[in-house]
Amino acid sequence: MEKVSSLSELGLATDIHRSLFRPIHQAAPPSPTKRRTKISVVGAGNVGMAIAQTILTQDLADELALVDAKPDLLRGEMLDLQHAAAFLPRTRILASTDYAVTADSDLCIVTAGARQVPGETRLDLLHRNVALFKLIVPPLARHSPAALLLVVSNPVDVLTYITWKLSGFPPNRVIGSGTNLDSSRFRFLLADHLEVNAQDVQAYMVGEHGDSSVALWSSISVGGVPVLDQLASDDNNAAVVMEQEVLERIRKAVVDSAYEVIRLKGYTSWAIGYSVASLARSLLRDQHRIHPVSLLAAGFYGIPRDRQVFLSLPAQIGRSGVLTVANLHLTDEEAACLQRSAETLWELQQKLEL
Amino acid sequence: MEKVSSLSELGLATDIHRSLFRPIHQAAPPSPTKRRTKISVVGAGNVGMAIAQTILTQDLADELALVDAKPDLLRGEMLDLQHAAAFLPRTRILASTDYAVTADSDLCIVTAGARQVPGETRLDLLHRNVALFKLIVPPLARHSPAALLLVVSNPVDVLTYITWKLSGFPPNRVIGSGTNLDSSRFRFLLADHLEVNAQDVQAYMVGEHGDSSVALWSSISVGGVPVLDQLASDDNNAAVVMEQEVLERIRKAVVDSAYEVIRLKGYTSWAIGYSVASLARSLLRDQHRIHPVSLLAAGFYGIPRDRQVFLSLPAQIGRSGVLTVANLHLTDEEAACLQRSAETLWELQQKLEL
Amino acid sequence: MEKVSSLSELGLATDIHRSLFRPIHQAAPPSPTKRRTKISVVGAGNVGMAIAQTILTQDLADELALVDAKPDLLRGEMLDLQHAAAFLPRTRILASTDYAVTADSDLCIVTAGARQVPGETRLDLLHRNVALFKLIVPPLARHSPAALLLVVSNPVDVLTYITWKLSGFPPNRVIGSGTNLDSSRFRFLLADHLEVNAQDVQAYMVGEHGDSSVALWSSISVGGVPVLDQLASDDNNAAVVMEQEVLERIRKAVVDSAYEVIRLKGYTSWAIGYSVASLARSLLRDQHRIHPVSLLAAGFYGIPRDRQVFLSLPAQIGRSGVLTVANLHLTDEEAACLQRSAETLWELQQKLEL
Amino acid sequence: MEKVSSLSELGLATDIHRSLFRPIHQAAPPSPTKRRTKISVVGAGNVGMAIAQTILTQDLADELALVDAKPDLLRGEMLDLQHAAAFLPRTRILASTDYAVTADSDLCIVTAGARQVPGETRLDLLHRNVALFKLIVPPLARHSPAALLLVVSNPVDVLTYITWKLSGFPPNRVIGSGTNLDSSRFRFLLADHLEVNAQDVQAYMVGEHGDSSVALWSSISVGGVPVLDQLASDDNNAAVVMEQEVLERIRKAVVDSAYEVIRLKGYTSWAIGYSVASLARSLLRDQHRIHPVSLLAAGFYGIPRDRQVFLSLPAQIGRSGVLTVANLHLTDEEAACLQRSAETLWELQQKLEL
Repeated sequence: MEKVSSLSELGLATDIHRSLFRPIHQAAPPSPTKRRTKISVVGAGNVGMAIAQTILTQDLADELALVDAKPDLLRGEMLDLQHAAAFLPRTRILASTDYAVTADSDLCIVTAGARQVPGETRLDLLHRNVALFKLIVPPLARHSPAALLLVVSNPVDVLTYITWKLSGFPPNRVIGSGTNLDSSRFRFLLADHLEVNAQDVQAYMVGEHGDSSVALWSSISVGGVPVLDQLASDDNNAAVVMEQEVLERIRKAVVDSAYEVIRLKGYTSWAIGYSVASLARSLLRDQHRIHPVSLLAAGFYGIPRDRQVFLSLPAQIGRSGVLTVANLHLTDEEAACLQRSAETLWELQQKLEL
Repeated sequence: MEKVSSLSELGLATDIHRSLFRPIHQAAPPSPTKRRTKISVVGAGNVGMAIAQTILTQDLADELALVDAKPDLLRGEMLDLQHAAAFLPRTRILASTDYAVTADSDLCIVTAGARQVPGETRLDLLHRNVALFKLIVPPLARHSPAALLLVVSNPVDVLTYITWKLSGFPPNRVIGSGTNLDSSRFRFLLADHLEVNAQDVQAYMVGEHGDSSVALWSSISVGGVPVLDQLASDDNNAAVVMEQEVLERIRKAVVDSAYEVIRLKGYTSWAIGYSVASLARSLLRDQHRIHPVSLLAAGFYGIPRDRQVFLSLPAQIGRSGVLTVANLHLTDEEAACLQRSAETLWELQQKLEL
Repeated sequence: MEKVSSLSELGLATDIHRSLFRPIHQAAPPSPTKRRTKISVVGAGNVGMAIAQTILTQDLADELALVDAKPDLLRGEMLDLQHAAAFLPRTRILASTDYAVTADSDLCIVTAGARQVPGETRLDLLHRNVALFKLIVPPLARHSPAALLLVVSNPVDVLTYITWKLSGFPPNRVIGSGTNLDSSRFRFLLADHLEVNAQDVQAYMVGEHGDSSVALWSSISVGGVPVLDQLASDDNNAAVVMEQEVLERIRKAVVDSAYEVIRLKGYTSWAIGYSVASLARSLLRDQHRIHPVSLLAAGFYGIPRDRQVFLSLPAQIGRSGVLTVANLHLTDEEAACLQRSAETLWELQQKLEL
Repeated sequence: MEKVSSLSELGLATDIHRSLFRPIHQAAPPSPTKRRTKISVVGAGNVGMAIAQTILTQDLADELALVDAKPDLLRGEMLDLQHAAAFLPRTRILASTDYAVTADSDLCIVTAGARQVPGETRLDLLHRNVALFKLIVPPLARHSPAALLLVVSNPVDVLTYITWKLSGFPPNRVIGSGTNLDSSRFRFLLADHLEVNAQDVQAYMVGEHGDSSVALWSSISVGGVPVLDQLASDDNNAAVVMEQEVLERIRKAVVDSAYEVIRLKGYTSWAIGYSVASLARSLLRDQHRIHPVSLLAAGFYGIPRDRQVFLSLPAQIGRSGVLTVANLHLTDEEAACLQRSAETLWELQQKLEL
């Protein structure tokens, strides 16, 4: 499926390139050392394609491979991207239902996932996803044994754990997109309200992606200035010190915004595309930037070392995956919330057959 | 629909911004002179949103307004873009079913259009599109009397004519995306076959967008070197001189590639998104670059001056819209093909009530 | 000096453009409304040219005008930039010894300044700079009455005041580059030491640019996490709480780094080029981002309202210049330091004849 | 010289990073496989630094190493670039007088060269350059045996030959910047005259960089349309067919423009910086784009196979260096001019002791 070109089949003599171009004398063959950057995206749905297109626009890869179970959809999406070649830097775009197309990737992004059917329990859905990931992760790991794996499918934390187990990779090379996007939504809501640029707002959502995520209030800063401290220290504005109840309502607005987009347009795509492309950039260009991503959280913030669960924590990421985890000062309640999520996930994971 | 923020409704005291920031002494109010760049996109379907997202990624506008008749879809798409704020330069994103949201745009891009229903004739469909454009174009023109209008909806050439008539704008400010994307597909097919970078390939499709488009064979060059001349002058490669029949098959492969993408994935989006964003850039940043776009073709290449039809011709475009049309040396057959398209469109246009 | 082209003088017939391109029928003339973005740089020395080149690379302007008193240098620099046209988006590059070339700029950046001669007092040098700015600022203001003025020349704070006075502009439209670069050096030193990405480090130097600048220790955060608070709250690391003396040494290392670069290579250029380009971007693209820049500081942090001095404070900047000033919680000592600088500058300003 | 940081010497406790960040449990060490992109620049003069800064701005490398014989200048330039860290993606910037700093580069760019002293013959100067390159090339080749070598120093063609010989590399991995910049100047002059975007103009200067360069008139095209053919075929514009004499004057204007910039500002920097950065991009991102660069020209255009000289010819370049050479149709006179240059260079090369 790699080549569009039916030009030669159309009768275009194949020696035109030879007529137009010749090699130089004594040229050595290309070095076997691989130096190009390759990204694979598994799942050509709305999320996978928004990610693929944003990666392409931001010129992060020399080669982009798409994998999906639906060959027609896949070929249509590949052609649609290839037709833009004249507007973009040269990137080789491949697509196949066969995982061999992902060989020697630097980064594999998994967006495929089973959708809940009416009446299905969360556990039944998870069993179906385990079955699906058994078809996805082992071939990915086999074809790209040195790759980073980035899981976007939901429920992201448990699926990142499953990916880790199925890949046999060290945990720093298995990452979930986690609350990176939740944190962006949090920053947008705050920036919009405070009339500042969202890039000047720092604010983290951590923990389990979804309803139980934890907003780190002490992490909110604008241009590096801690907002809550600032409000507290400001004698003339005692009124603005925020109530616990208000903070909880803000957190809930962030969590609900994903549901709202899904309710309104049927799915989310653009924001997750930008979010995952930003992770891809920090990973592959070794940026050492701090993102809240789902990582092996055992041993952090009071989570016992034997609880091998993935939860989102602010971490430096780079070419080796998760480099370090930020050691924040959490309130007791925030830490307790993380520990509860860890326990819930751990119990759930015991019911899976990997 | 402009504001997401329900933060104040959530109880977040509204004087936080006043607590964090203060104006300087003696500051003058913002100048009334408008200096920001605003782009409006009408139609929040797959094409409109791929265009909007690519424009956002490429940082072409300070303000982006979306219009559609479906308020839920519209709000969902707006929120999905806004949630990426932390990953993008600051762009104000608005959305409304009311054209007032487009006020004072520099560029309005129309992607809305009626879809053919089974059994409908091409003329019936066009009548429905005329009715639709009567709801779209006059309010756009009224709210942004100095804007450039860029029509993407199909059939693009006649709809660009209709937009010109309904707007009352001078013809240089009304442009159809025309064969800009066809030309990119042409360049991709050639580059893929010749193993060169598509950005080094020049090749134009001109005339009527769709089945009757004209491939300008003499325009094919690689790195500035005319390919057909090169082949003809090369004694050792007489075999590669291309037959008329072969060239026609290549042209048809380009034309068919749009249908193929639609058949495979249901619609086209990415390539048209990049294509239109490249036009937006050349227009708003006054690049004077040459693109094949649909423009008032009366008087060019033997088309009579009284045939007021829009057809794609390579033209320099910039901040004033169409600046000049390239004066190529067409073969008699190529010119005849353009003239036939002009006549067909002219007859069709006589049946419209504008 | 605007045109390079001696092609027509060389005998290249002037009707080639007419032969290659033709206007469309009924085209309207370009709208008189100005929509392009123009930046002028006064001073074509190492600082001015590093700024001009970075602005060009980052595609911030549609037109770039250079002014200097040395016509040969000026023309050489203009040609050197123009020769790169094939590698850059289209930007019109002008150069002249006459300020008319700056007409209708959106942003004027002043890098010209008198250099200290041996034996000259600081006050004598300042008198010479006042004389120089009387030749620069009034014509700039006259040719671009709606422009933003950005002063880079040193001593930047007093020269920004002088520019304000000589221009008659409202204070929000007159800005000094101030401690924006000092803050970047501060962030680099911290990031290098902490092994994080400098873009994840927030840290401000404020006040008077140069030896008396104030490091805001409470503003240091990494990924939004306040560093000093974090260290203080960490029971196991009491040892790392930083001593006042250590902090002062860090501040001094930042201040000295400018002198070090000058001692080693003779001048500074690259970092100031990137720093000023980042300000130009936030201003012209209305980013509302927070930068520490020199602004009218009267009334802030205990500086009396009648002390009309310019000092660097973190401020939101955008298309209208200084939008708001961040209302930080300074320690008494930090505020006192600012107030002392204000008093010193005020006394100095009394000795100037404007 | 690699580290700026004297922070630890300043008393900043070194365990801050340990306090702020912790590794995850079971993390694997970074893979030994090298995946980052490293560029080295030899020579920290105006040309070398303009190249380094443009490469940095365009985010082409993860690591940038500078080498020069002057340690103070070198450290000053390194610090000046590092101080901009907050405005740029994370790039590790190193500098040393020791070539070990270039180890494992993907691309080494040589800008160092001896300057002519009054009374010195061209051959004497060349002997001094050979002596200099014997100090530069072998250590570069030893520290980065798989690198591409890009020579910018003048006389570029013979120095590229010398670099090839001294490195022992296959010829496709040794490239001279050659007439890439001359071609850009040619395109700018034509674009300026024709009122088009220089990116729409294709036009090559080939052959020996400098006074004997050859302008390929048949290669001039605008938007893919051959200009000379177009003029010739246009009955109404017979007057514009260009005389041989006129064309020669245009060629000379291009050649002279380099001298003009040097006369006016003392050296060239910006255009060569952009030009070389564009080569670096095409090489390292494997763009397969066509640039006129200095390459082993033996066997092309009638140059005998035993004449091992480097001359500029339009070539596709990519991750393996020179991929193919375009097989243009040259006039007899153009080919003769190339052959004469080859003979002159060959004779000169016989006098060198390598």
